[in-house]
Amino acid sequence: MNIYDIAKLADVSIATVSRVVNNSPKVSARTKEKVLAIMKENEYTPNAFARGLGLGTMKTVGIICPDISDIYMAKAVSYLESNLHDHGYDCILGCSGFKQKEKESYVKLLLSKKIDTLILVGSTYAGSGKDEADTDYIREAAEQASVFMINAKVAGDNIYCTYADDFQATYEVTKAYLRRGKEKILFMYDSESFSARQKLAGYEAALQDAGYPVLGNLKFKTKNDIEYTKNMLLEYNKVLDFDSVLATDDGIAAGAVKYAKIKGLSIPEELSITGYNNSILALCSDPELTSVDSKLGVMCRKTVERMIELLENEAQIEKNVCVPCEIVRRCTTDY
Amino acid sequence: MNIYDIAKLADVSIATVSRVVNNSPKVSARTKEKVLAIMKENEYTPNAFARGLGLGTMKTVGIICPDISDIYMAKAVSYLESNLHDHGYDCILGCSGFKQKEKESYVKLLLSKKIDTLILVGSTYAGSGKDEADTDYIREAAEQASVFMINAKVAGDNIYCTYADDFQATYEVTKAYLRRGKEKILFMYDSESFSARQKLAGYEAALQDAGYPVLGNLKFKTKNDIEYTKNMLLEYNKVLDFDSVLATDDGIAAGAVKYAKIKGLSIPEELSITGYNNSILALCSDPELTSVDSKLGVMCRKTVERMIELLENEAQIEKNVCVPCEIVRRCTTDY
Repeated sequence: MNIYDIAKLADVSIATVSRVVNNSPKVSARTKEKVLAIMKENEYTPNAFARGLGLGTMKTVGIICPDISDIYMAKAVSYLESNLHDHGYDCILGCSGFKQKEKESYVKLLLSKKIDTLILVGSTYAGSGKDEADTDYIREAAEQASVFMINAKVAGDNIYCTYADDFQATYEVTKAYLRRGKEKILFMYDSESFSARQKLAGYEAALQDAGYPVLGNLKFKTKNDIEYTKNMLLEYNKVLDFDSVLATDDGIAAGAVKYAKIKGLSIPEELSITGYNNSILALCSDPELTSVDSKLGVMCRKTVERMIELLENEAQIEKNVCVPCEIVRRCTTDY
Repeated sequence: MNIYDIAKLADVSIATVSRVVNNSPKVSARTKEKVLAIMKENEYTPNAFARGLGLGTMKTVGIICPDISDIYMAKAVSYLESNLHDHGYDCILGCSGFKQKEKESYVKLLLSKKIDTLILVGSTYAGSGKDEADTDYIREAAEQASVFMINAKVAGDNIYCTYADDFQATYEVTKAYLRRGKEKILFMYDSESFSARQKLAGYEAALQDAGYPVLGNLKFKTKNDIEYTKNMLLEYNKVLDFDSVLATDDGIAAGAVKYAKIKGLSIPEELSITGYNNSILALCSDPELTSVDSKLGVMCRKTVERMIELLENEAQIEKNVCVPCEIVRRCTTDY
């Protein structure tokens, strides 16, 4: 029996149960009575999530990302912290890495703290897409506290997702390449995360819609590392035939630029390159990268706005919000 | 009357007072009695720092940095979180910005949480160096919890600092430039922080020791922004005469590379460039940047090691630890 079950039995939100536990004046006497009765009936003891007895909300949000030294995730945490601080909330930060076991144990760890809600930053938390059981730990977590996910989509009660429309973005980039006569588009990725899968699907759909085959050897797995990507391309370019690159991160695209320089290929004429996330690497690279801006700031704002609505006003909030991307054209493409 | 006063009167560390308050078994009966007597005598009520009554240590560390979206600070927080997690500590993260008032209020905010200790990441917390009062808020904070500073040096009880030997690094870079006949070295910086002041002092000392004048117009203030720095150099190059750049951050150095490209200057022959922090920008830049590695990972490890010694073993720890830098030579210099 957990707070979620109590909420269900009482036909109120978990926020309401939390308020009752915390003796908030916002709850009507009638609701309070009903919830307390159900708690008693079921011998429910408030857990970490609800135990700030008499202190009202904890005003603390747990944020977990795999790697805060990653430019994209650091930006996300920066946006979230700033938005949450404006609303008087503090952040407990955890960096879980990418392994399933560590992700699960970090989620458990943060739930054991007095947090109002949990934010998971990054596509990796949605699992590989092959096994639904990969995300069971998130549905379990959502029984204790509301879970907000950024750039991932997981179905379940009390789970709220905000993600970029990556499918649309790579669909458009691929279409734009084809229009400019680039028909051998190398799709470069570094994971099979939710976001990477959307990007791949957009690329494949655009090719198919335009009547082109989807070639397996043009889907090229690498690491989000400039040096590594450069070396991989130098190693495999003899067996690969490509005139353009669509990379799932700017770090990969920057490696493709380095490769083109070494091979003496003119950019964008002989090799066009599109990066992703519109990071500082897009501006540091020479020539500067065309890059898909996945509107991380908007995603973080929409996450915190909904969270506040849920926590403070018990509002019905949108479960899934999809944010359109913007293609920022610079010097590595001519579409 | 605060925990620090009690510790002084009882002639024990604040960690011991905290343990007494938290009823830790690690304190001898005699010490406990003495501390409790002094607390009673002085009508001392444990504050936020000590109020985890009966729960032992909070195992929570407050980390404040000005801007987590900055590559360098994100790396620092990543190292700290990982080291602290290994020791079973959680992190509360605050991003204070660079304004004095906000820094002060963030420090107060985190002290009001149940934290064992506070880590301040970044040179900005040491103030401008012009007014000692700038750092009073840190000495006040240190009365409530031990304060660890990274890349800053502030004197005071219960304040522990770890910083890079920036003086030595810029001294060596300047000497190396002079040996290669580069005598018009543009020092590019973006703040007057503790770290920036050490870097400037090393540059000036090397010039003076070699019998060269320190020219005011070769000390050039910019922003840690590629585009901005490039534009500043394009605007001022007519009135500036320089053959080499020593930048206090890779973002500045990357801007100098962009400038050289536009002006058609060969790197490193006509313009040599040295960056700082050995970040991903050094590898993304073309040509790749020579950069000073300020050994952030070592600084973070030494910080957490001492913190654990202090918190868990009440050990006497070094107040100030200076970590030597390493100059990583790449393609933008020939020294």
